[in-house]
Formats: sequence, structure tokens, C-alpha cells
Amino acid sequence: MSLTPPDPPSAAGLPPARPPVPASEIARLLDAPLEPGEGPEPAIAGVRELRSAGPEQAAFYQPGGAGPLDRGAPGEEELAASRAGLVLLPPGIELPGRWILRTPAPQLAAARLQEWFHPEPSPRAGIHPAAVVAAGARVHPSAEIGPGCVIEDGAEVGEEARLVARVYLGEGVRVGARTVLHAGVVLERGVCVGSDCRIHANAVLGADGFGYVFDGERHRRFPQTGTVVVEDDVEIGAGTCIDRATFGATRIGAGSRIDNLVQIGHNCVLGRRVILCGQVGLAGSTQIGDDSILGGKAGTGGHLTLGRGVQVAALSGIAADVPDGSRIAGAPAWDLEKELRARALWRRMVRDAERRRREP
Amino acid sequence: MSLTPPDPPSAAGLPPARPPVPASEIARLLDAPLEPGEGPEPAIAGVRELRSAGPEQAAFYQPGGAGPLDRGAPGEEELAASRAGLVLLPPGIELPGRWILRTPAPQLAAARLQEWFHPEPSPRAGIHPAAVVAAGARVHPSAEIGPGCVIEDGAEVGEEARLVARVYLGEGVRVGARTVLHAGVVLERGVCVGSDCRIHANAVLGADGFGYVFDGERHRRFPQTGTVVVEDDVEIGAGTCIDRATFGATRIGAGSRIDNLVQIGHNCVLGRRVILCGQVGLAGSTQIGDDSILGGKAGTGGHLTLGRGVQVAALSGIAADVPDGSRIAGAPAWDLEKELRARALWRRMVRDAERRRREP
Amino acid sequence: MSLTPPDPPSAAGLPPARPPVPASEIARLLDAPLEPGEGPEPAIAGVRELRSAGPEQAAFYQPGGAGPLDRGAPGEEELAASRAGLVLLPPGIELPGRWILRTPAPQLAAARLQEWFHPEPSPRAGIHPAAVVAAGARVHPSAEIGPGCVIEDGAEVGEEARLVARVYLGEGVRVGARTVLHAGVVLERGVCVGSDCRIHANAVLGADGFGYVFDGERHRRFPQTGTVVVEDDVEIGAGTCIDRATFGATRIGAGSRIDNLVQIGHNCVLGRRVILCGQVGLAGSTQIGDDSILGGKAGTGGHLTLGRGVQVAALSGIAADVPDGSRIAGAPAWDLEKELRARALWRRMVRDAERRRREP
Repeated sequence: MSLTPPDPPSAAGLPPARPPVPASEIARLLDAPLEPGEGPEPAIAGVRELRSAGPEQAAFYQPGGAGPLDRGAPGEEELAASRAGLVLLPPGIELPGRWILRTPAPQLAAARLQEWFHPEPSPRAGIHPAAVVAAGARVHPSAEIGPGCVIEDGAEVGEEARLVARVYLGEGVRVGARTVLHAGVVLERGVCVGSDCRIHANAVLGADGFGYVFDGERHRRFPQTGTVVVEDDVEIGAGTCIDRATFGATRIGAGSRIDNLVQIGHNCVLGRRVILCGQVGLAGSTQIGDDSILGGKAGTGGHLTLGRGVQVAALSGIAADVPDGSRIAGAPAWDLEKELRARALWRRMVRDAERRRREP
Repeated sequence: MSLTPPDPPSAAGLPPARPPVPASEIARLLDAPLEPGEGPEPAIAGVRELRSAGPEQAAFYQPGGAGPLDRGAPGEEELAASRAGLVLLPPGIELPGRWILRTPAPQLAAARLQEWFHPEPSPRAGIHPAAVVAAGARVHPSAEIGPGCVIEDGAEVGEEARLVARVYLGEGVRVGARTVLHAGVVLERGVCVGSDCRIHANAVLGADGFGYVFDGERHRRFPQTGTVVVEDDVEIGAGTCIDRATFGATRIGAGSRIDNLVQIGHNCVLGRRVILCGQVGLAGSTQIGDDSILGGKAGTGGHLTLGRGVQVAALSGIAADVPDGSRIAGAPAWDLEKELRARALWRRMVRDAERRRREP
Repeated sequence: MSLTPPDPPSAAGLPPARPPVPASEIARLLDAPLEPGEGPEPAIAGVRELRSAGPEQAAFYQPGGAGPLDRGAPGEEELAASRAGLVLLPPGIELPGRWILRTPAPQLAAARLQEWFHPEPSPRAGIHPAAVVAAGARVHPSAEIGPGCVIEDGAEVGEEARLVARVYLGEGVRVGARTVLHAGVVLERGVCVGSDCRIHANAVLGADGFGYVFDGERHRRFPQTGTVVVEDDVEIGAGTCIDRATFGATRIGAGSRIDNLVQIGHNCVLGRRVILCGQVGLAGSTQIGDDSILGGKAGTGGHLTLGRGVQVAALSGIAADVPDGSRIAGAPAWDLEKELRARALWRRMVRDAERRRREP
């Protein structure tokens, strides 16, 4: 079972759940006009990126990418070179001879198309015999409780929720409808997760906040009697940790997206559609407004407030409150443009010093 | 089961385990004098912070906070505006008309009071039928072994220890009395955890240290035959990883507090009451003296020694030994005050350069 | 069961699996000449470092260490002071009166010797009754499936593989021969791990990549239909997360070594023998050539290519492509030597400013 070389079949990724369909059916599905190309109408079996798509696949071209998280969007050369059987293109871009699906938002259409080829698995309704569910827990009959799950008293699991395997729900935990909890997720006592959320493997919500009082001999734990509230439509990455509040709730606003290995301290309050990239760390009592984005490994000091629509560059260290709409970078973080000019200034200073060093 | 809006009841946090009690009983409990205010004696049901406490709650006011980890302590305006039924106040601060409990250490008294309202759960003594305990393991009859736990041969679990659920103890692991291991904790072979410790969900102690020897073809693992020793009264955060030593033991000193997602490499030795905030990383063979504190995301190079009582700012990168009592910051880290002056100098230099750029 | 003081026996580390053997037998074992010292021939029970080895142990002295990961190699004073019963020494270094084993690669020989004293545990062949294995999974009869493991349909486990406990294998996962998966490891659907790999506790491979398209109202997940392919002889640390690709595979090259709490975003491709130290973070679509090393907490921006044999200092932030053989540091990272000179320049500038501040 040696894997290299050659590539195993699985290196191609997950197989689509449906057989190939003609391009015209995809056009109907996406409600987008089909522009026929040369040759017979292609049968399409899924989406790939431009450079790896073959004649059985649709690809998309989104000039400039689809938003602040979409770096690395391909250029026109890649478009011209693509072997994709069908190309999703925005108005105004031509690709003579090719079968084209015209849509103002190609990446979004591609996402919808790929969802159709790879539908979410339906819950395997019921409680697996190797799960342990307390008598006082309430599990909707349409929910899936996989093997090895442990559900304590008073916990509630909503309709069509999926607890894949080995999930732990403490006392009184609430899991909303259609929420998916992957293997090894731990929701400690009283944690409340909304509907349509997805929490990836081994994430931990509701561990004690890091709060101590020194009593002259030891750091005595201040009881962390708050909880964690995750609103609807939130995605949380693998291994991410969100601590319970000292009082009240650490809160993750609806529509937020949190990547892997992120640390969120006690009492943090995130607004709606906040995006935290991998390994971000929020010290306790950080507040973040709607639609803000923190790049990878960024960190905040405690008790700070970031406004709405703030964009924070990767690796930034935030040491002061941040007004709405700011774009910041650096450690300590300040205005992004200023940081970029400061970095250029420093490069010039170093270059000048190097020159002086060489020319005595 | 939509969670927003309005707030679900659980967003208020965990319910107290006791009914409300009169302020005078709390005074007896804390052995602190009660100073009556206007109106009838309040009945108190727990502690909240000043701004969210209501008439049924005690709050505390600790001017300047209770130590280096207690940033964000509220000011006097918040004290005056609080609706708390009972206020824990230090000598010399008045609050006319309010019911006051006088104590030199309000935050500590509040911690004790909140512990009384929210006592630790007692162990559910015994081995859950869905746990797997090897014949040669020794579990004290008063200990709790929750569902899904796996305990290998030769492991020992002390009295009133709690293994909540799905904990893995490798061969010969020792867990001391009253220690709590949350769901998903992994203690690999031979790891030794003292008494009165708390290890949060999905932490891993005793994985192999990252030690290899290149043999000309591959990085051959140097067998990591040491272990991890955690002394008494240590708390370890969710997802934190502490590697076993190459030889001997990676050691965490008594009374230490380690936050979430911290990485501690092989052969590290931490003294007593060391505090490591979230996402700190210690490279192999780091030594840290008693009572040192590392802020969030700080990192150390390998084979370095930090003295006693060292304070390291968040995000610092430590590249050299650090004497006792130092306060350091920056990457590479140096004296904190110097770093702050250096940052100010840099801000001035950038400002001057910006001015020159604008005024030709 | 108080652990301090005195030290518990287990603080010495794992006991060797074999009884002590005479130095001459070790010489035969390692095929290295024995140079007798004063006194009777020692009986050796394992390896320790020079400073902690006693008369029953072998120690090694490797001047300058054994490679870029081997900092903190001891000096000659430590060699002279060692109480080791047997010393593994390279040619040209004398230690009069001591029993010496002569070898050009002392650390490598020590690794082999310690492997002999501490052999890998053999698989406990078979499926533990407390494991849950789907009817359509294929498990080699020589493989070990420990308690609490969950294996979904279509998964394959190769010969002598060890799934220690509570491992989750999603649908169609492949695990190669002799690969060891420690407790709590999660391999999501379709992930493919080669032979002779080792994945430490609570690592997660194959969680969804962090890819979204904003549809005007919400960040819609772009289906992550790729997978993760881990080639042969790869080691992955505890708590590390490797996301599945959007299409195709996130790939970890043969012989790579990845430390704890590392984050690897979707579509990353690592060459052979790549080393990632603790808490490294790779943004999506990072490519890294063979034999590159990233120090602890280093991070990469998305869609970047690092060449072969690149060495990245700890804490670096990589914001641009990196040519083969580069040694880089800083954030944003540039040439290591330049960064070191730049740091020295900055220290001088701060020192001069401090002097001016003091001498008006």
C-alpha cells in the first residue's frame, strides 16, 4: 500500500455523488445562459480549477477573485490554457470556441454547482448503540448521534443535527438544527450552538477561561460560570478553542467563519460575519464588530474593541482599540498603508547602511 | 431552535447550585463585615461583574485589578453605576446608600463566594460501563472514569480523580488525587500528573518530542524515552501539547497555569507558579524559573533559560537567556522599557519621513 | 499520591525493555570498535545525555550537533565531567581512562542503540470489541484497532498498522502499513496516509479548507471536495491540523516531519523531507520544496512558493516566493544575514537615541 509513486486514485479528491450531466442541464440548474462552443455538448461531472479541469469538468474564471479571502485568483493565461469542458465566465470576457456558461458571479455559481455534485450527507437518524446518551438529554429523532458520542443530562440536540462520532456534550448543552459536529468536538457544560453551524474535529468550546486571583500562595481559579453562545450559521475550524465567559457568555456572531487552531479567550464578543484566519488569538474580553477580518496568526491584547469592517493583516499584534473600517498591520498594529511605507523606509535605511558598510 | 434574537436563557451562564441567601449570611461566610445600605437586606444568588450585576447579585470592585493577569479592571464610574445588590469593597472606598461587604481583597472574596454558589461537581465514583480499563490498571474506588475512557495496563488513578469522558491513559500513567481530566485528554505512556490538577479538553501530554538525526537519507527519530511530569495544582488549557522528554522528564512545576493551544517542547522544565498564556510556544529544553509569566503567543528558542519572576510581553520572541526579574518584550526580546522607547522612536522616525514625503 | 518532592520513579522516563548488556555486545550491535577503559567492562542499560548518564548508561558526544535541528549540543567540559559508563565518540577525540565506542556518527549510533533498548511496541493484532468498524471497511488482520476507534465504510487499514485508541477514520480513508495513529486522531473522509507514518494524538487531517464565497448576504462555503495525501514515512505532531484541498489534494511529501499544533491550509503541497517546527502556519496553496525547514511559529501568506532547501528562522512571516537554498528571517522575511545586520543596526540606532536622550 505504498502511496508514491504513482498517485493513488484518492489523490483526485472525493468522487461526485452524481453521474455526469449535459452542459445544458447545468445551465438550467444555475439559471445561466449557455453559449455553445465547438464540438459536441460536454457532459460535466463536477468543478475543478482552471488549470486542473479536464473535458468532463466545469471551471470558473473570476477576474480579481471573489473577495478579500480569495488571493491567488488565476490570470487570463490560465483561462486560455484551460482544458475545462465548460467555463463559467462573467460578461465581457470571451473564449472563442469554448462552451461557456455566462454568469455575473462565476465563483459563486461554481460553489452552487459543486454543492449539487457533492451534496451534504443526510443525517443517519438515530442514536448509535455505541453512543452514551443520558436519560435526561433530549435528542430530536431526525438527528444523528454517531458512535462514541457522550451526551450528558439536560443536553438538547435539534432536528437533523449530525454528531459524527466521539462528540462530547456536557450538561445542558444546546445544539441547533442541522448543525454538524465532527469527530472529537467537545462542548462543555451549558454551551449553546445555533442552527446550521459546522464545528470541525477536536474543537473545544466552553473550557474554563484563563482567570485567576493570586491569594498570596497560589493562583486561585476565579470560577468561570459563564458559557459560550454560538449564533446561527457559524463555522469553526479543527482544534479551535473558545473559552467560556467568567459571567454571561463568550459570543460568536451569526455567519462568522473561524479557521483552525484559533484561540478565543473568555468574554470575547464577536459580531456577525467575523472572519478569523488560522492560529489567530484573541485575549479575554476582546470585542469585534460585524464583518471584520483578522489574518492568520494575528493577536489581540485583552479588553480591546475592534469596530465593524476592520481588516487586520496576518501576524498583526493589536494593542489598542480599532475604529470601524480600519485596515491595520504590524505589531503593535497601526494603519496598513503607514505600516507598508514604514517597512519600505526601513528597507531603504538598511540598504543605505549596507552601502556605507561596503564603501568606507 | 434559533438562538438570536432573543437571547436564550443559557446565555446568562451556569445557574447557581444554591438558592439565594441574605447578605448577612454571605458576610458570615466570607468573615467580612457587612455595612447595611438603604432598603431591605438583599438576597444574593451569585457574583457578576459590576456592570451586569442585578439586585440579586454581588459584585466586586478591586482598584487596579488583582495582579498582572487582571487587565481591564473597571473604574469608579462603573462602580457608581452598578445595580448590584451587594458590593464587595476594599477599605477607604465609600458607596453611600448601598449594601457593602468590606474586605481587603474583594476579587479574592468574590472568587470564594462564587465557588460557594458553584461548587465543583463531585466525582461520580466508579467506572462507566462504556469505559475500557485494563486488568492491570489501578483505579481508586472514589475516582470517576467516564464513558469512552481507555486506561492501559499499569496506569494508576488517585482518589476522587475525575476522568470526565473519552480520556486516554497510556501504560503506567499516574493521575493524582482530585485531578480532573476533561473530555478527549490524552496522557501517553508513563506520564505522571500530580494531585489537584485540571487538564482541559483535548490536551495531549507525552507525545514524542521533535527530535531527529539525519542519517544521510532520512530524518531518523531519536527515541523519546523520557516522560512528562506535572506537579501538583497545575492547570493546563484545552488543546495544549506537552511533549515527553528525550531522557528524563519534561516538567511542569507545582501551581503553574497554562492556557489553551500552548506548545511545550521536549525537555522543558518549568518552575513553580509559571503562567503561560494562550498559544505560547516553548522550543525544546527551555527552562523557566518560578513565578515567571509569558504573554500570549510568546515563543522561546531552544535551550534557553529564563530566570525567576520574568515577565514576557505577548508576541515576544526570546532568543537569549533572561535574568531573574526581567521584564522583556519584542522579537528578539529585550528590556520592556527599552522596547517601548524603541517603538516610540520608530514612530517618530516614520512620522518625520512621512512629513518629508509630503513637504518636498 | 503527591509527586513532589521526592521525584517519582517515573520521572526517570520509560524503563528499557531489555536487561543491561556488556559494552562489548553493544560494540557488536553497532558494528563499532570498543576502546576499553579503566576498571571492569561496564554493563549498559540504555542511553542518556552526557550530564545525566550514570555508570549503567551510554552517552554520546557529537561536536557541533547532528544537524540544523540539533542546537544545544554539549561542550567538551560536559564530556569530561560525564559519569557515563560508555561514551560514543567520533574519531580524534580522546577521553583517557574511559570505555569508548568509536563511531563517525555518535548521535545516530545512540539513536540506533536506544531503539534497541526501547523497541516499538508490536501491534496487538485485531479489532478491539469496543471499536466500531463498518461492514465495508477493510482492516488487515495484523493491524491493531484499539478501543473506541470508529472506522467508516470503505476505509482501509494496512498490515501492522496501529490505531491506538479512539481514532476516527472517515469513509474511504486509507492508512498504510505499519503506520501508527495515536489516540484521538481524526482522518476525515477520503484522506490517504502512506506507510510507516506516525500521527500523534488529536491531530486532524482532512477538515474542510477555509474557503468561502460571499454571496451578498453570507460567506458561502465553497465545497472542499479535495483530500489530503500523506506520503510514506511522515511524522505529524499532536494537535496539528491539515485541511483537505478544494480540489485534488493537500500533499505532505515522503519523509517530512511536522511538529505539534501546526496549521496547514488547503491545497498546500510539501516536498520530501520538509520540516515544520511547532505552531508553524501555512496559508492555503503554499508550496514548499524538498528539504526545507521552517522554524517555530513561522507563517506563510497564501499562494506562495518556497524552493528546495530553504531555511526559515522561527517567527518569520513569509510574504513572497523564496528561491532554492535561501536562509530567511524577519516579518516580512528576507535574507537571514541581512535581517541580523538590520537588527544590529536598529540596536545601535536605539542606543544612540538613548544616549542623546540622557545627554542633552
